[in-house]
Order: sequence, then C-alpha cells, then structure tokens
Amino acid sequence: MPARAFSFEVQHRSANSSARCSTFTTPHGELALPTFMPVGTLGTVKGVTIDQVRESGAQVVLGNTYHLALRPGSETVRNLGGLHQFMGWSGPILTDSGGYQIFSLANRTRITEEGAVFQSHIDGRTIELTPERSIAIQEDLGSDIVMVLDHVVPLPSQKREVAIAMERSLRWAARCREVARRDDQALFGIVQGGLDAGLREQSAKGLVSIDFTGYAIGGLSVGETQEEMVDTLACTVAHLPQSRPRYLMGVGRPEDILLAISQGVDMFDCVLPTRSGRHGAAFTAGGVVRVKNEHHRQEKLPLDAECPCIACKHSLGYLRHLFVSGEMLGPILLSIHNLTYYQRLMHGAREAIRADRYQDFCKACFEGWQIASEDQNT
Amino acid sequence: MPARAFSFEVQHRSANSSARCSTFTTPHGELALPTFMPVGTLGTVKGVTIDQVRESGAQVVLGNTYHLALRPGSETVRNLGGLHQFMGWSGPILTDSGGYQIFSLANRTRITEEGAVFQSHIDGRTIELTPERSIAIQEDLGSDIVMVLDHVVPLPSQKREVAIAMERSLRWAARCREVARRDDQALFGIVQGGLDAGLREQSAKGLVSIDFTGYAIGGLSVGETQEEMVDTLACTVAHLPQSRPRYLMGVGRPEDILLAISQGVDMFDCVLPTRSGRHGAAFTAGGVVRVKNEHHRQEKLPLDAECPCIACKHSLGYLRHLFVSGEMLGPILLSIHNLTYYQRLMHGAREAIRADRYQDFCKACFEGWQIASEDQNT
Repeated sequence: MPARAFSFEVQHRSANSSARCSTFTTPHGELALPTFMPVGTLGTVKGVTIDQVRESGAQVVLGNTYHLALRPGSETVRNLGGLHQFMGWSGPILTDSGGYQIFSLANRTRITEEGAVFQSHIDGRTIELTPERSIAIQEDLGSDIVMVLDHVVPLPSQKREVAIAMERSLRWAARCREVARRDDQALFGIVQGGLDAGLREQSAKGLVSIDFTGYAIGGLSVGETQEEMVDTLACTVAHLPQSRPRYLMGVGRPEDILLAISQGVDMFDCVLPTRSGRHGAAFTAGGVVRVKNEHHRQEKLPLDAECPCIACKHSLGYLRHLFVSGEMLGPILLSIHNLTYYQRLMHGAREAIRADRYQDFCKACFEGWQIASEDQNT
Repeated sequence: MPARAFSFEVQHRSANSSARCSTFTTPHGELALPTFMPVGTLGTVKGVTIDQVRESGAQVVLGNTYHLALRPGSETVRNLGGLHQFMGWSGPILTDSGGYQIFSLANRTRITEEGAVFQSHIDGRTIELTPERSIAIQEDLGSDIVMVLDHVVPLPSQKREVAIAMERSLRWAARCREVARRDDQALFGIVQGGLDAGLREQSAKGLVSIDFTGYAIGGLSVGETQEEMVDTLACTVAHLPQSRPRYLMGVGRPEDILLAISQGVDMFDCVLPTRSGRHGAAFTAGGVVRVKNEHHRQEKLPLDAECPCIACKHSLGYLRHLFVSGEMLGPILLSIHNLTYYQRLMHGAREAIRADRYQDFCKACFEGWQIASEDQNT
C-alpha cells in the first residue's frame, strides 16, 4: 500500500464468481466492500441532509473536483476546514479528478500533453487542469481517496484515439503519483482503453507497474451495452491485483452493479438514485416504480413495507401527491428511499458473497426486477 | 368547552401585559401556549421532513383546506387515513377553512349568502365552498382544530363592505357551529371587522354568544401597519373570554408575534420561516441574515452557535455556497433553521411570561434584532 494510513483485506472470495468481500481501512474509518458511494457533487448529496446520507447506510461519499474547484473553489473549502468539515461528513470521502467533467461538461476543451485547458460551464472562465493541479485541488479538499487525472474519450471512438488517450492517461497517472505524497490520502489509478481488451490490458499493467493504492475502471457507462461493459470488466480486472480495491466509476443501475460485483469490482458511484428520485422514479425489489402514476392515487401501502427509510413510513398515495403537487418533499423522500435501496442492495450482496450464495442472490434480485435471467451474465 | 375532548387552562398571566401561558389539551396531545404553528399547506411543511418539523420543537401544524380540497381532494386524504396519517404527524393539526385562499388565490370568486363560488387557481374548475362544505372537508381531513368559513375582504375597504363581510361571517360561523358536531374536533370562530373597533367588538360578541372552543382574529396581516395591528388586537381581545385560546391568523414576523402575545394572543401561524428560508433569509437573535451575501463566503462560524438545528452544525460559508450553487439543501437547511428559531423564540416567550419578565424578554429581542424599542408598543 503506497499510502500508509490505508489497508485492504479480502475476507471472502465467492465460490462461483469473482465477487469478493473485503475491508478497506481509511483515516476516516473502515469500508465494508462492495460498497456504493452516493455522489455529493458540490459538497452535498442533492436534496438530502448529511444525517440522512448516514442513515441511508452510506459508508463513503464522493465529491467532484471539477465542480468544487469552480464553486466555491478548493481554497475556500480548505479555509472552511476541508471537505469533511465543509459538508459535515466524518466518514471517508473519495474525490474524482475532474477528468470526466472536462469531457462531459466543459466548453471548448483543449487537451495537450501538459493537461486540459477548458472553459467553465458556469461563467466561461478559462481554467487549466493538469495532473499536478488536480492533485493539489484534491489535497485542498482533503479527501481520503484521490483519483488521478485521466483523459476520457467518448464511445465509440477510433481505436487510435482511444489508444492515444489511454497512453496519455498513463503518463498523467505517473505524474499524479509523483506529486501525491500525503500518507493520509490514497491515490487510485484509472484504467482506460475503451472496449478494446488489448488497450485495457496495457493500461492496467502500466498502472500496476506505477503502483497505486487502488484501481478504478474508467471510460465505461458512456453508452456501451451491458454485455460490452461486462466483457471489458472481465478483461480489465484480470490484470489488476487481488490485493487492492477496484472501483467502477459512474456505474450505475442496480443490475449493472450486481454484474460488476460478479467480475470482482468493489466500489461504485452513480447519481442515479438521487437523480431518479428527484424525477419520481423509485427503486424497489419489484423494479422501478413511477410514483406519479395515476393508479397510485389512493395507494395506502408504502413503496416497500420492509424498507426502513422515512419515505416508506408514508403511503405511496402521499408520495404521489407530493410529486403531483410539485412539493420539494417528494424529491427529498424519494432520493432518501433510493439511496437506502442501494445500500440495502449492497448489504445483501455482501451477506450473499460471505455465505457463498451470491449467484442465488443475483437471480432473486433479477427476478424481482423482472429482468430476464438469461441477460444476467453472472 | 363545546368539544368535549378539549380543555384549556391558563397557568400564568403576565404581571405587566396581557400575555399569558396556558395549556390547550387536544385529542393528539397538549399544547403549551403561546405557540407557533408551521404551515403545512398541502400536507407538507415545504422542504422539511415531518421528523425535522418535530425536531424543530413544533407542537402543532397547520393544513390548508382550500389547497388540500383541490389536491389531492379531501376524500383521498380521508381514504389514506386522514391528514395525521397522510403526512405522518401524530400531534395536533389545525386546518383553516379556505376563506382566506378564496380571497387571495381563487379566480373569479362570487360570494352569496349561501357561500363562495370560485374557480380553482390550478385548473379553473368551478367549486362551491359553503360553511357546511368547509366543515365536511375538515371532517374528512380529521384535523383537531377546525376553523369556521369566513368572508375576508382586503384592507383598506369601505366600512360598509367590511361590515357586510363581518356580518355574513357571523352568520356563516353560526352555520358552521350548527353542523360541526364531532367531539374530537374543536371549532374556532374568527373575528372579522377590519380595523374598525366597533365592528371588531360586534364580531367578537356575536361569536362569543354562539360559543366556540377558541377564537381567531382574522383579516389582519393584509397590509395594515404594525400599530394598526396592535390596536385592533387590543380592542378585539378585550371582548374575548379569558377561558378560551386565541389565535392570530397568518402572523407573522417575530416582532409582530411578540407584540401580539403582549395583547393576550396564544397561537400563531405563518409561512414566513419556510418561505424566507427558501429565499436565503435566516432569522437570528441578531436580526435577519442574508445568507447569499458575498462577505459570508469564508465564514467559518455557523448562523447561530447556540442554535441546535442541523443548519447550525455547518459554517455560514457552507450555507452560502449551497444557495449560490442552487443546491436544494440550502432551502432545506434554512427552512429548518428558521422553524427552529421561531420555536426557540416561543419557548423563550413562555419562560419569560412564567417568570414575569416578558417585557424584559421583548426588549432584549428587539435590541438584538436592532429594531428601535420605541416601536415596540409592549
């Protein structure tokens, strides 16, 4: 482990898949993996108080370097005590590097070997983000887990473009590794290479030779099919050490997460639970419920009688009323419910892996969601 | 007490004002008066979970008959278990009668002796609201405290118009009293009469002769000066029995509430704490703080270090960041802070009345808010 305050231990490997249960120890506490990280883009998980994030069962939250660097600025966060104190979260925090948002949000991005020059999506200001600057910002933020700056390309792209970006990402990763020296921050490398098995292998091996505390799989969840995602994971994870945590960035739907766990992935993040919640879509064991649907008008039962969240203390009829009336409490309650659903799903996955019944667990989940089991690939 | 499940007991009268401490017992619990009731228009205090409403110190919440009758409809609320179960509030609930919203919100209202015919502000549907219908809706909702339907007129109006509306309100109050027969619902009359002392006296005496469980003062907080409000309260309360609770509808700012308590008022409601909170204005012992102000950018201290609310666990700099970034959590946290501030203010008022130092309490509050004490009228 390059960062001394961290340790990683695999407790159990699944008998029939690559799924595993592990513990990742950070300066702000232990994480039981596999885990799902709610996204707190601007120092807040949208619509949810930090106590409610904790009550959902979340162990670690994610902050976005790009967003926080633009507003309120990483120096302001540092002056206000760092990201933990700023948002009131005493557990571990992971920050991304800004690479993905430069790809998805910024205007007129220009990538050179030095770094990325882009215009803010808020006020058009020109900003430069180099590997060294990304690390410096993440040091200001004070997150526990720090990501290297990577060059993300859209899919599909020409293999040559994907290869150039992957190779540049490797050089940027080495530069990040060079400057990230704090013992209380773990640096994760990010495997790139699109859907090409050879490029993924080259990227993974290159990163492992640099030696990171953990390895992320980037450049997925950008429009590929589920089968492509699973195949790419398989040929990437094969080249990552068992002794380090693995993080699939930006994924995803509950079914994607379960499949990725089968491939040996340990960590996930996605805006889906909160974004879907704000738009009236609730994740349940029976599939996605559209809360605004007219036929829920007089429904006395909650979304899920077994869910301990505060949304499920109310009738579905009440939740529908909140959404139909445009009341803020609708998005709030459904965000909390979805975050809780994701955490319960991950808890169930960990229990199932430990008991060597992970495949049965996945089968039962897919059946509940009414997703055909032949699509499972578990 | 006309409604048998209710009782009212004055514990202490202020030595130097008409302020009093009392207990109002309802089927859903005891209220320590004076109290402030958060407004839960559509079965939700905007932006705040029901647990957070409780944690703010609120004892009783208000629901709006007009709004709930339009969405989701009082029958739907009844079918979903009544308003308590619908919104998950186990304490007392007061519902207004719809009179004020017919005046302020509805399109093309026509008032006849029978009742009001108006068009919904949502879909233009024509709806009739009679005194009997208002009571029937409030029985569907199942609130503890039910208000009579009143005819509200804008101020200033011709005295003749005010008198006609006041007299009609008296006849409507009698019709409400006639049909409201449930022992578990207390019916409150509403004094009208604009700013005219004679009309207020006539209205109060007329209502007292009908005999209600409590008396509200309506038709204020519609643009009059603070002095006019206080004068009108004085000449109204003089004709109300000491043995019944008094409720000033729709008021208001902290300073208005303290002055009204001096006049012997026991209950208040207003959207101000939540509406102001959504717009970035925080009530504090030092006056109103505009959270978005640039000079709070790096402020490490909370809004109020003595406030126990969850907003005050964060720095003011963080709260500013949430508002500047348009994050939902800003309005949520500030609504909670303001509700908590109002409840702490009422708690302080009750303590001060009991200790016979209510005038000193008001003086200290006004000084803190930097409102000149000669305007106090306490």
